[in-house]
Amino acid sequence: MPVIQTKSILNGERLALTRTLSQIENNTSEGNQILEELFPHTGKAHLIGITGAPGTGKSTLVNRLVFNYRHPHEGKNAPSIAVVAVDPSSPFSGGAILGDRVRMQDLAGDPGVFIRSMASRGSLGGLASTTSGLVQVFDAAGFDIILIETVGAGQAEVEIASLAHTTVVVEAPGLGDEIQTFKAGILEIADILVVNKADKPGADNALRALRNMLSLTQPEKKSVIHHGEQLAVEQSLEINDLTNQDWIPLVLPTIATTGDGIAELISGISKHKEYLKSSGGWILKEQARLTNEVGNLLQQALHKRWNSSISPSEYEDVLDKVVRRQVSPRKAVERLIKGAGL
Amino acid sequence: MPVIQTKSILNGERLALTRTLSQIENNTSEGNQILEELFPHTGKAHLIGITGAPGTGKSTLVNRLVFNYRHPHEGKNAPSIAVVAVDPSSPFSGGAILGDRVRMQDLAGDPGVFIRSMASRGSLGGLASTTSGLVQVFDAAGFDIILIETVGAGQAEVEIASLAHTTVVVEAPGLGDEIQTFKAGILEIADILVVNKADKPGADNALRALRNMLSLTQPEKKSVIHHGEQLAVEQSLEINDLTNQDWIPLVLPTIATTGDGIAELISGISKHKEYLKSSGGWILKEQARLTNEVGNLLQQALHKRWNSSISPSEYEDVLDKVVRRQVSPRKAVERLIKGAGL
Repeated sequence: MPVIQTKSILNGERLALTRTLSQIENNTSEGNQILEELFPHTGKAHLIGITGAPGTGKSTLVNRLVFNYRHPHEGKNAPSIAVVAVDPSSPFSGGAILGDRVRMQDLAGDPGVFIRSMASRGSLGGLASTTSGLVQVFDAAGFDIILIETVGAGQAEVEIASLAHTTVVVEAPGLGDEIQTFKAGILEIADILVVNKADKPGADNALRALRNMLSLTQPEKKSVIHHGEQLAVEQSLEINDLTNQDWIPLVLPTIATTGDGIAELISGISKHKEYLKSSGGWILKEQARLTNEVGNLLQQALHKRWNSSISPSEYEDVLDKVVRRQVSPRKAVERLIKGAGL
Repeated sequence: MPVIQTKSILNGERLALTRTLSQIENNTSEGNQILEELFPHTGKAHLIGITGAPGTGKSTLVNRLVFNYRHPHEGKNAPSIAVVAVDPSSPFSGGAILGDRVRMQDLAGDPGVFIRSMASRGSLGGLASTTSGLVQVFDAAGFDIILIETVGAGQAEVEIASLAHTTVVVEAPGLGDEIQTFKAGILEIADILVVNKADKPGADNALRALRNMLSLTQPEKKSVIHHGEQLAVEQSLEINDLTNQDWIPLVLPTIATTGDGIAELISGISKHKEYLKSSGGWILKEQARLTNEVGNLLQQALHKRWNSSISPSEYEDVLDKVVRRQVSPRKAVERLIKGAGL
């Protein structure tokens, strides 16, 4: 295989892009080298995280968003769009058996659209790092908008989406459990809350409940925000809150299957971008995201250093003692760090 | 507050248990000290992971399981049961607004039941470590069965459940997306697949589809299994597969709201335990789980060592350069490791 030229990626050549994305997913040294060269060219795209539980119609919504972005009203320029789907149940991941793939054909052949799904196995830090790498490639390649779609029931996946500039949380009426998820953390990360399937029974109730919750949580949020607090590796979600202090999340109804409400959603996303740019929130989001990425890479690097210093037999010996309950996991870790000469 | 006596926990005293669980959730040094003392007393309980997407009725199923375990047929002894709910949308987490808490009252006051939900914030490695700590406390305290309930749409949560001895994956008909989740990884971790809400339309189809998938994936699974492969920190999910090589996952219908199928599920769980004990799979599962725990603690310890060695100003300086696109995240990590003198 020929060496991938950074220039080809910066020019947005699709074959070079496809190859690079694979290199990054496989975490090869060539992929990492390309990321090095691309990094100075990143920082231009608008990153939009879209997360929601299975059954909310989130993937259909993403599909519809892409279509509408690519077919704007007359006189407007259509932005180019990349989609990174970090969602094992996404139709983008090639495993669709429910017909969603058919709809994707509306977008096939459009040179302004690039869709990439992630295999989504391996370690969790790896998942976040790989997503970040794919986003950087699309950013450097000049895509105006990058949609990061994750299934929003897991903490890792929610965190990945929340590190975008604009985070859209998708809800649907009648799923029962989901409304509680909001109480437990997803609400705080949303810049825009979408109630999809708004033609289903219970949609009005869901909209009202969410708006009520937001009006209740706003003052509380303000009281815990302190400007200029030191960034720490694991505080990124709180930093995300910080940028929201003057932004009251929008609550919008959509029907992704028909396209109702999509124009309003696009307009809401655009308003949020303007808000971030004018308030200084954009740079705070950048800091939070890159702090998180450095933190993930640091974890991996520290582990790799340790792993190359310990002898396999010593590792197995210590683990064996743990399984026999002779050494506790914590004592085992002490021994493993000493054993690696660290 | 008085110092918690290890003896009180080994005797299963509830007040001591409650206090210890809080210490562990808050990751205090007292909590870690208690874990040290309890560890030699662990390894007796049957750990059962229960995972499934929101909307599958998983929490109701867990509730029903506990109730049935505690009310066995005449002449049988009821096992004692602890529940660790790692699920922000679980009614056990105290955030229930849909009436599930009412049902939990069936279990209130039963000294053979202890339910603990986790706050589920903080880092991902932290989530897994805390779960592990809580499970160890219940194990040492003599609970016969420990149910670990996680919401099965996120990778971290699925992994936590899959590290139990027996993993039950809960599905429900008509959720659309979920059937694809199986294709993407959840299927492989299931020892028992439950189709809950089996009275709903589509249940027969779901049962048939799952049984078909299983019969298709079995030969493939066998071909990639190698006995005696070296354990590595990040391979725990594959090790889990390894123990399943002669166990064909059960596919069982239930209706948690009425209790239909729960007796069969309990019988299936019991069969799986017998299989593990007779096949040597039990010890492999123990190895996988403890390897994973040591790996998580190691990550945390390595990060802590790094964090206490780097100067905050150097850290901020490097991050600032990343945000300005002057230094790539990978180069930043190199500098941060060097800067800590590691």
